[in-house]
Amino acid sequence: MKKEIPLDKAYRLLNPGCVVLVTAAYQGRRNVMTLAWQTPLSSRPPLVGIAVAVSHFTHELIAASGEFALNIPGPNLLTAVQRCGKISGRDRDKFEETGLTPVQARKVGVPLIAECLGHLECRVVESYKTGDHTFFVGEALAAGAEEGLFSDHWEEKAEIIHHLGGNWYFVSGRRETG
Amino acid sequence: MKKEIPLDKAYRLLNPGCVVLVTAAYQGRRNVMTLAWQTPLSSRPPLVGIAVAVSHFTHELIAASGEFALNIPGPNLLTAVQRCGKISGRDRDKFEETGLTPVQARKVGVPLIAECLGHLECRVVESYKTGDHTFFVGEALAAGAEEGLFSDHWEEKAEIIHHLGGNWYFVSGRRETG
Repeated sequence: MKKEIPLDKAYRLLNPGCVVLVTAAYQGRRNVMTLAWQTPLSSRPPLVGIAVAVSHFTHELIAASGEFALNIPGPNLLTAVQRCGKISGRDRDKFEETGLTPVQARKVGVPLIAECLGHLECRVVESYKTGDHTFFVGEALAAGAEEGLFSDHWEEKAEIIHHLGGNWYFVSGRRETG
Repeated sequence: MKKEIPLDKAYRLLNPGCVVLVTAAYQGRRNVMTLAWQTPLSSRPPLVGIAVAVSHFTHELIAASGEFALNIPGPNLLTAVQRCGKISGRDRDKFEETGLTPVQARKVGVPLIAECLGHLECRVVESYKTGDHTFFVGEALAAGAEEGLFSDHWEEKAEIIHHLGGNWYFVSGRRETG
């Protein structure tokens, strides 16, 4: 069960620069895409940005629907994260391919991924062409995370995936404070 | 000594979502700012984006000069990273405050930080207002990194800082591959 997060704190889900699974849907078609090129953009209003390659199926779905969701996977989902980054969803359903479970979102018509640690439901408010990608700016309409992950001390518990390049990832480990 | 990096691979420096030290300068004034809200945007051309709060001194310098550099700190610089995120450079010089060493960049009139593991020298090509921040899109004009960090297997060696929130950071640790 997910805990609701105040929207002006929603950026903290993305703050460590983690890999996300982007979900998108339009007219009965849906997709899951692995994405590392994301950043928070604003606390009030709560805005986030994702850079999506123009050729991707997910690009087509987001451009058509004006919505997307960001789902934050834990290290137990690494196999699905890699699989969703390697195959295209144009000709197969990645939920079925990976066994990830779609669940209904609260504010957008895009499935969330039940197994993920946190979610951001976004409506596209701007999109900019940036070289070989489009940068979609999304306003967070709802956000939630596992209770244990996003407490006042969620920093103690966050264990999330980062992409180094190619097949290499690391998982948040040693923690430091000054 | 830094190794030059092909510009279409420069995004890999930012890929894991690490904390960067942004350097900026204009008419004899300079600053260093800690920033976590960054993302690669394009491989060809090589574009990166940073979200900078409108009220910050660094915002003023970048808006005036149209240039910035991203410097990637290793865990040995955590104290400086925290300090540069807490004080303003309007009334003091953060290089002097922290002991970081400014060195001349190759393509921009902005100092690089000698102690950092990698650098991206950028010219602003677009800037967008995104809520309480400005999103500066920079084209990488030069990029470099420590030989050991950015080899064909730099993923084996990268040890960089990520921001979790507040005073909490983590350093890339356990590595995974599928």
